[in-house]
Amino acid sequence: MGSDNHQNLEFLKEIGLGSSNIGSYINGQWKATGSSVTSVNPSNNQIPAPKRGEIVRQIGEALRAKLDPLGRLVSLEMGKILPEGIGEVQEIIDMCDYCVGLSRQLNGSIIPSERPDHMMFEVWNPLGIVGVISAFNFPCAVLGWNACIALVCGNCVVWKGAPTTPLITIAVTKLVAEVLERNKLPGAIFTSFCGGADIGQAIAKDTRIPLVSFTGSSKVGLMVQQTVNERFGKCLLELSGNNAIIVMDDADIKLAVRSILFAAVGTTGQRCTTCRRLFLHESIYTDVLDQLVEVYKQVKIGNPLEKGTLVGPLHTRTSVENFQKGISVIKSQGGKILTGGSVLESGGNFVQPTIVEISPDAPVVKEELFGPVLYVMKFQTLEEAIALNNSVPQGLSSSIFTQRPGTIFKWIGPRGSDCGIVNANIPTNGAEIGGAFGGEKATGGGREAGSDSWKQYMRRSTCTINYGSELPLAQGINFG
Amino acid sequence: MGSDNHQNLEFLKEIGLGSSNIGSYINGQWKATGSSVTSVNPSNNQIPAPKRGEIVRQIGEALRAKLDPLGRLVSLEMGKILPEGIGEVQEIIDMCDYCVGLSRQLNGSIIPSERPDHMMFEVWNPLGIVGVISAFNFPCAVLGWNACIALVCGNCVVWKGAPTTPLITIAVTKLVAEVLERNKLPGAIFTSFCGGADIGQAIAKDTRIPLVSFTGSSKVGLMVQQTVNERFGKCLLELSGNNAIIVMDDADIKLAVRSILFAAVGTTGQRCTTCRRLFLHESIYTDVLDQLVEVYKQVKIGNPLEKGTLVGPLHTRTSVENFQKGISVIKSQGGKILTGGSVLESGGNFVQPTIVEISPDAPVVKEELFGPVLYVMKFQTLEEAIALNNSVPQGLSSSIFTQRPGTIFKWIGPRGSDCGIVNANIPTNGAEIGGAFGGEKATGGGREAGSDSWKQYMRRSTCTINYGSELPLAQGINFG
Amino acid sequence: MGSDNHQNLEFLKEIGLGSSNIGSYINGQWKATGSSVTSVNPSNNQIPAPKRGEIVRQIGEALRAKLDPLGRLVSLEMGKILPEGIGEVQEIIDMCDYCVGLSRQLNGSIIPSERPDHMMFEVWNPLGIVGVISAFNFPCAVLGWNACIALVCGNCVVWKGAPTTPLITIAVTKLVAEVLERNKLPGAIFTSFCGGADIGQAIAKDTRIPLVSFTGSSKVGLMVQQTVNERFGKCLLELSGNNAIIVMDDADIKLAVRSILFAAVGTTGQRCTTCRRLFLHESIYTDVLDQLVEVYKQVKIGNPLEKGTLVGPLHTRTSVENFQKGISVIKSQGGKILTGGSVLESGGNFVQPTIVEISPDAPVVKEELFGPVLYVMKFQTLEEAIALNNSVPQGLSSSIFTQRPGTIFKWIGPRGSDCGIVNANIPTNGAEIGGAFGGEKATGGGREAGSDSWKQYMRRSTCTINYGSELPLAQGINFG
Amino acid sequence: MGSDNHQNLEFLKEIGLGSSNIGSYINGQWKATGSSVTSVNPSNNQIPAPKRGEIVRQIGEALRAKLDPLGRLVSLEMGKILPEGIGEVQEIIDMCDYCVGLSRQLNGSIIPSERPDHMMFEVWNPLGIVGVISAFNFPCAVLGWNACIALVCGNCVVWKGAPTTPLITIAVTKLVAEVLERNKLPGAIFTSFCGGADIGQAIAKDTRIPLVSFTGSSKVGLMVQQTVNERFGKCLLELSGNNAIIVMDDADIKLAVRSILFAAVGTTGQRCTTCRRLFLHESIYTDVLDQLVEVYKQVKIGNPLEKGTLVGPLHTRTSVENFQKGISVIKSQGGKILTGGSVLESGGNFVQPTIVEISPDAPVVKEELFGPVLYVMKFQTLEEAIALNNSVPQGLSSSIFTQRPGTIFKWIGPRGSDCGIVNANIPTNGAEIGGAFGGEKATGGGREAGSDSWKQYMRRSTCTINYGSELPLAQGINFG
Repeated sequence: MGSDNHQNLEFLKEIGLGSSNIGSYINGQWKATGSSVTSVNPSNNQIPAPKRGEIVRQIGEALRAKLDPLGRLVSLEMGKILPEGIGEVQEIIDMCDYCVGLSRQLNGSIIPSERPDHMMFEVWNPLGIVGVISAFNFPCAVLGWNACIALVCGNCVVWKGAPTTPLITIAVTKLVAEVLERNKLPGAIFTSFCGGADIGQAIAKDTRIPLVSFTGSSKVGLMVQQTVNERFGKCLLELSGNNAIIVMDDADIKLAVRSILFAAVGTTGQRCTTCRRLFLHESIYTDVLDQLVEVYKQVKIGNPLEKGTLVGPLHTRTSVENFQKGISVIKSQGGKILTGGSVLESGGNFVQPTIVEISPDAPVVKEELFGPVLYVMKFQTLEEAIALNNSVPQGLSSSIFTQRPGTIFKWIGPRGSDCGIVNANIPTNGAEIGGAFGGEKATGGGREAGSDSWKQYMRRSTCTINYGSELPLAQGINFG
Repeated sequence: MGSDNHQNLEFLKEIGLGSSNIGSYINGQWKATGSSVTSVNPSNNQIPAPKRGEIVRQIGEALRAKLDPLGRLVSLEMGKILPEGIGEVQEIIDMCDYCVGLSRQLNGSIIPSERPDHMMFEVWNPLGIVGVISAFNFPCAVLGWNACIALVCGNCVVWKGAPTTPLITIAVTKLVAEVLERNKLPGAIFTSFCGGADIGQAIAKDTRIPLVSFTGSSKVGLMVQQTVNERFGKCLLELSGNNAIIVMDDADIKLAVRSILFAAVGTTGQRCTTCRRLFLHESIYTDVLDQLVEVYKQVKIGNPLEKGTLVGPLHTRTSVENFQKGISVIKSQGGKILTGGSVLESGGNFVQPTIVEISPDAPVVKEELFGPVLYVMKFQTLEEAIALNNSVPQGLSSSIFTQRPGTIFKWIGPRGSDCGIVNANIPTNGAEIGGAFGGEKATGGGREAGSDSWKQYMRRSTCTINYGSELPLAQGINFG
Repeated sequence: MGSDNHQNLEFLKEIGLGSSNIGSYINGQWKATGSSVTSVNPSNNQIPAPKRGEIVRQIGEALRAKLDPLGRLVSLEMGKILPEGIGEVQEIIDMCDYCVGLSRQLNGSIIPSERPDHMMFEVWNPLGIVGVISAFNFPCAVLGWNACIALVCGNCVVWKGAPTTPLITIAVTKLVAEVLERNKLPGAIFTSFCGGADIGQAIAKDTRIPLVSFTGSSKVGLMVQQTVNERFGKCLLELSGNNAIIVMDDADIKLAVRSILFAAVGTTGQRCTTCRRLFLHESIYTDVLDQLVEVYKQVKIGNPLEKGTLVGPLHTRTSVENFQKGISVIKSQGGKILTGGSVLESGGNFVQPTIVEISPDAPVVKEELFGPVLYVMKFQTLEEAIALNNSVPQGLSSSIFTQRPGTIFKWIGPRGSDCGIVNANIPTNGAEIGGAFGGEKATGGGREAGSDSWKQYMRRSTCTINYGSELPLAQGINFG
Repeated sequence: MGSDNHQNLEFLKEIGLGSSNIGSYINGQWKATGSSVTSVNPSNNQIPAPKRGEIVRQIGEALRAKLDPLGRLVSLEMGKILPEGIGEVQEIIDMCDYCVGLSRQLNGSIIPSERPDHMMFEVWNPLGIVGVISAFNFPCAVLGWNACIALVCGNCVVWKGAPTTPLITIAVTKLVAEVLERNKLPGAIFTSFCGGADIGQAIAKDTRIPLVSFTGSSKVGLMVQQTVNERFGKCLLELSGNNAIIVMDDADIKLAVRSILFAAVGTTGQRCTTCRRLFLHESIYTDVLDQLVEVYKQVKIGNPLEKGTLVGPLHTRTSVENFQKGISVIKSQGGKILTGGSVLESGGNFVQPTIVEISPDAPVVKEELFGPVLYVMKFQTLEEAIALNNSVPQGLSSSIFTQRPGTIFKWIGPRGSDCGIVNANIPTNGAEIGGAFGGEKATGGGREAGSDSWKQYMRRSTCTINYGSELPLAQGINFG
């Protein structure tokens, strides 16, 4: 970041950031970072859901007013290009707008009872406190997915942002805090931390936090899950992806190439939905590959805030080292670098978008390498391609390019892709908030954003109310 | 049971049981019990769901034709009284009937996409194989809850019944196998085992079984969960309960006393929904307690197949020992036995239904003692009673007796009972299949039977299909 | 039918029919037909919905036991071929099975209230009595669609079958009556009439019948609707169809030809979903037409109970006359008969399946001619074909044959077919019960069978319950 | 209103109103009122639903910015008191906020097909144009209920406001038009008229308007319905109410009296949900009546913009004459005026809130007298009270005051109130937008605002797509 001059950073003031920022907002007060959650009181569930919707609407308005500076900050601190930075903030705004309506639709059910003078209800109540542990690659959208829903459901939120994106954590928290204060609501409704693994551990262990929503690697996610399960809490996990695109012989090749580019090099390969595996039908293998290699060579790498840049830096020096290690392993397992494969010498965390020809049996293909590295493989039949798609531990996103209805419907059917996101003729990344986001298997099984994801942020009660004076029993049992 | 003469056992022939029965049905063959799952092939998901519904309907018809002998067998082998044995079989039949309709209602969604020429779907597909590990106290109903839904959802079922109820496991399996054979379906659709912890372990570890539905204690359930999680499988847990009834000052006392009796001594206290804790408002404390003690003394204990018996034996000798140990601990923690407390000297596993006056702070009150022991405590306000209800690790069932709408709605609301089942003016036990059955906290969070429980037996895909020739991105992002 | 000897009619005894049958079943008694509804008492809504489901299940079992003889009777009395007769009875059985599950899923909602200490419910209650007026072409399936749902919803049913299919009306009523009697339920739950327009009028005018479900022509349907509306009752209308199949240039021609044949000549063109208009892309026009004419010539016309027959007689002599008049009008408006067009001289109501080449502007094309007459027209673009499809007053069913996803999704989208049934690569007829059946525009707008059709058989109450002691007003209004 | 000086009307400028205002906004242009709908083109359904949600969000923001002046205008032109005027505008704003989320939730279904290689969809598409004819008493909220949903569903709106509230029609239209223009959308999306019955007739007859939503009297509503039905269009009717409050012997009397006051005199008795009938249990009859008469006498009548006023003028001189006629009829049918009954002599359209003791058999009690006249009657049992509630042709709103759960649940159950709105312990008026608003019987059966009301603004297609190469038929029929 050192190369940015001060003038470019003026926008930070617009979102309340100074030259030094205290990192934790607890119970309505800014404090130096502490390592434990101390004084959260889930007092807000007295507020009816539609009123909570109004608060979330105001948060959305506050974010909308700062869309550009917040987007710039995301770009600056995370490293993604500006259109993606702004897109990420837009996603929280969309979530806020969505949740306003949702606050009047957190519907329970009235179920016919088999017993006279009985009513059966399914009622949804808030959990209390929802812990959100988010990752550096979506430093605010993931918070948005979780917090907007958690809040309209009547919960308090305890958020730990990534340790490497503290300014975004603070900027978003300030906007939320202002809305709460303006509405004279207790600050305990929204608590945030800029901290590391110790805070994450504290959240995972805290029996006052019935739900922990965690975004990160499968490895850490499993540890969080086991910790939370031991105290009989619940987890909502968004873990590693290892996402594939299949290009069939009848695909619209132009559409496929554009999609693969966005899916594989967008966000410098640091999305959980980044395309890491590409399966090309043998009949179009060379054609697609040639076009891809050509396009890769023209991609502009550089300052993410600059217009025209498609690939910004990797997030940290460690990311660069992982990229380098990955390339070594790839080579040692027989992978052939078709383009890219190197770190830029210009300084900064810049690496080349990389295409690798490799066997699907190479162990490295089963793992998530968090950078712009794409494995290309050949197949002959749809069944083979689907089997390859499903052959990794992860199950987040997947996409097929084809013009045949039969292929599309098989792909999304019982013997198709085993992922949580199953697309056709679009990239693996770039989800809309109206659907449920998340994946199966080692991706953790959680679902965020739209559909009935809100149910995860509430507890369900099956209630049978006898309003008569008799006591009939279910299944017609006669007792006593 | 030794006193039953052979004539009473004639009904076993009706349900296909002989004097010696092979215990495992694997891939369409009866085999001597092996300790591992070997050859399951989830081939049935090619069958459309409504056709699967027809198979489940036939299973229901087969069970209905054998309702009485199966009910007798449940009573004989598990020890519950005959009306409860028959009620349990009726519950599977109800589940079968219910699932026929459900097979045409496993609906996905079509969600409006923000992108032109795009469709967004939420599709539900079968998981493949569902493992069901059930417990002795509901030796067939729990299978019914799980298997009926798992089958219409398109899954194969691998069932491990309790080691102490093998005849029920075999009898139910025979009926299911006959239906499969009659329809020329592969036997691998339904596999069952009469085995112990080794089979349970094998199921928990088997990566071919994406979902394990486990019913049993919180302690074992947590172990199963950790094992399944490590391989990124899913669990559906129905674990320990420690269920309370609250009687308010304005309650219909007659209704309350009848309900407490059924809830606390029914199934000899061996339901997961058995009432174990009773909170009486101070103003009616003595009155209710006097009536209860009186009623307890009149309860007929004895042969569960005999008419008029309300309390059969505990399931095993170990259960009796646990009862005895429990009574000792209760006494050592200040509990006062108001009635019962002893093992019957007549032989068999018979114990006295027991009422104990005890402090809510006694550690034993926080645990599930699996027998007919009821802890009675006094309270002054609704808030106090709710806090007591929620003060244990378990969160399965709960009930309040009151005539005030405000009390009922607070009880089922955000600051009411934290259980999965929250009743008013009925017992804690005796759920209908139309609602979702299960509990929160240490009870494990799973939901079985009605409502949207079926979603747990399927995997969800969010599918976006581009049927145009352009590539607009979500959140209006412009890339490249 | 005169050629059937008595032996063939032995099956009638199996379903309770003798040589003379009294035609009305009112309040549990068989009576000679009267012209008015006199003594219906909707007493059954005290029965919980799941118990009503059990009754409908038993009705389904009774029908299943008589599937073959009932199917024969449908074939004999209506004139459709035996596989279709049996298919029709199977459809009621499917509806019964479906409704058993539905009886536990007639769910209301619990909606978040914006006011503290308030609950908002959406509750569904039965209407009381549902009148069902069905037509000759589906003499029992239409009853099944309506009655199964009406009954599980808690209503009584008053059924007027077609005057020309009295035996089916009586046979089905006898089976239902036996189930009601066996369960000791009042006969008033199910009343039936074999009568004409006077009974229909009486039902339409009767203020005790809040809902009248009418199947028949658009002309009569409108009259029924106006009559029912005047007394502020509700109608569920299934009126005329004028259904089109579009065959695109990329269609699977073999699949299309088979489908058109079933859609246009099945049930001798007397389904409301019969295909009456065929739009062929100019590039495949001649090819498809040649194949169709060839196939039409091979269709076996004759005794519907005989194996191999595809086309039975028209239902009545009047139908034959209407066919003849229709052919005259077609010719006078420039229609060219490519095959068929005549009444068979062999006696009986047999006519030739007919293909007509005609301009889409001919007025006769906008009307429903209830027989096996297919209008064929040519088009050049998808937009043109859709406009033609939508250019008639009716809006029941429609189908396209294509292999392009874009074409399918446009067809089912906002600017596609304006019908209630919008298929791809299957005929216009042959609906499954899991979906909602019915059409738009002059087809009347009603929906029967699956999806949320049940809501039409219930009344909805939006209930707000204040269980606190304050009186906050919606929209934050402060009054007084 | 003549007494208002010019300074008070300055706020009109804020919402774009001058001293002379052209009354119709057609196809994006303001025109002098014409009597027919001429040039509407439903072009907007190409816009994805979530984008339409964004437009509705902006309309909501525009209204929010003008909440106070618009509320004042409602109060000034309609005559309701200011808090109610502002509440009415708040209601459209709430609807806009609600519909933003809804635009991503207009979900269709994917239904399991019984045929292999088939998908069954239920798809919702826009209707095209929705006609909205609203009444003087809610000159903008009723537009809001309809237009917000109609727009997110993808329809154009043609609005005819009441002839006596033209300024509100124009002011709201200006705000909407500005949003459309700012977003470069065609003006044809929203057309409005300030006209009389001729415009209403034109809308009812116009075949280009598939749905007409009409709010007004049962008499006019029936005429509209018959006209629309004749052209096979659909109606959404919100017609007369004749709403009752029942006060049981165990009611919270203070809560009941406050509620009755708001329900009966609020909006000077000119809400469709105004309480017009009061049923008092004989045991509290005198007590409640005495309190009511006392409270009625203290109600401040006067300038609706003035603080403290509870009762503004009737809307027009005709309303006053109807009030006077009504009082005469009441007296002639044996009604006894307990308080009120006169027109104020001070000038303006002011009348006294009136309580009448009368027999439930008096014919006038069955009619809707649109002013602040409350009929009081006595009852002995709940069953009697419910029968009285249900004894009128209308079925809009109803409320009971009781503290017994059994009474509440009977009231909302199958043998309770037959109205569309069934409250407990709140007034008959003052609905929240999250529920469905509307009534049964002569009230017309329509439902507006929340729940699944949006389905009325769309057409439903049941789509079966065959993506295989075989042609299996439903119900297993074998044809050919």
